[in-house]
Amino acid sequence: MTAPNDDTPSGSSPSGSAPSDSERHNTKMARKKQARDKIMATKTNEKGLTIVHTGKGKGKSSAAFGMIFRCIAHGLPCGVVQFIKGGMDTGERTLITDHFAGLCDFHTMGEGFTWETQDRERDIAAASAAWDKAKQMIRDPRYHMVLLDEINIALRYGYIELDEVLAFLRDEKPEMTHVVLTGRNAAEALIDAADLVTEMSLVKHPFRSGIKAQIGVEF
Amino acid sequence: MTAPNDDTPSGSSPSGSAPSDSERHNTKMARKKQARDKIMATKTNEKGLTIVHTGKGKGKSSAAFGMIFRCIAHGLPCGVVQFIKGGMDTGERTLITDHFAGLCDFHTMGEGFTWETQDRERDIAAASAAWDKAKQMIRDPRYHMVLLDEINIALRYGYIELDEVLAFLRDEKPEMTHVVLTGRNAAEALIDAADLVTEMSLVKHPFRSGIKAQIGVEF
Repeated sequence: MTAPNDDTPSGSSPSGSAPSDSERHNTKMARKKQARDKIMATKTNEKGLTIVHTGKGKGKSSAAFGMIFRCIAHGLPCGVVQFIKGGMDTGERTLITDHFAGLCDFHTMGEGFTWETQDRERDIAAASAAWDKAKQMIRDPRYHMVLLDEINIALRYGYIELDEVLAFLRDEKPEMTHVVLTGRNAAEALIDAADLVTEMSLVKHPFRSGIKAQIGVEF
Repeated sequence: MTAPNDDTPSGSSPSGSAPSDSERHNTKMARKKQARDKIMATKTNEKGLTIVHTGKGKGKSSAAFGMIFRCIAHGLPCGVVQFIKGGMDTGERTLITDHFAGLCDFHTMGEGFTWETQDRERDIAAASAAWDKAKQMIRDPRYHMVLLDEINIALRYGYIELDEVLAFLRDEKPEMTHVVLTGRNAAEALIDAADLVTEMSLVKHPFRSGIKAQIGVEF
């Protein structure tokens, strides 16, 4: 099968005959590799990143936990603060606290999700305590990465102040620490301040066909 | 702080006086919870899903591995076939093979990424072998979830046939098995056939500022 936009010049075959599909493909791939290697050679800086996962789609927290698992795999200390304790997606937490508590510190805000508790004062107190914990972890340069899971929800409801979070990340985050902030409706000012932003969009969801949340998929 | 579109009717305060911010918030949250509980009650079906993570953004594979880690956390057998072996993102694989080999079977296609090998015949042979392994795992109802990581790349290059993959998922996938397919440029026909599709979009990437791939973030 020939790639759709194969632009290998004719006459490049070593034998002088028309190049085969495989020869054309191999030449094209060699050029791609050369171009890629050249681009990668210009990327030489390292720094701690502010990373945002937002959007209405799935995978914001899971992809962030994937980075936490990578840190764990490399033996790098990391931390997680969960700003919203959903009743359900406790899988990652269980796995981390059961197996990797020595490498990853895990803190879950004491109260449930805001529409489970219906007590704004208590939600604000819990979010503030979670943010205090987050600041403490981020200030400690021992942590390679700190995940602030669902912090965008707490910011959106005004449980913690966006300006304070932005100022803290700008002024107090150690240079090499990665901080990951997840949750839908990320504030524009946070996106502006971030280095790496991914939006997860919902293309199709089985809830619309009456399928319930399932073990291993949603929790 | 009052939520921007607070539509609690006035006069709903039990004391007869104007409701406080907290009272309004609590009432609103109670209504949200009621609406959410009602929606959730209609979601009663369970079935194995075909799940696609696509788009140019980060997190496609990490979010899929997050689901694999959830299965592991729940003690559910699962499997991973990596169709493209990047030189770098080996963190998840290391973690799984070191700690959870009993629960998660992990198979990596023997060869490197296509522009590293530059040998189309070898790439096709390796992709076909990976697809055979994938079929074997999916057919075995013992597996709760099977992740076909970066299969969209192999499909895009024509290393395996889309029609064959679609027919297999339709006719041979056990009803309760979840299959997750990742990689950019997912085929339209695959999206049509899938139950749950998420697109990861790149909003901002630090490569553009000369930052290189970093441990814990990209690998």
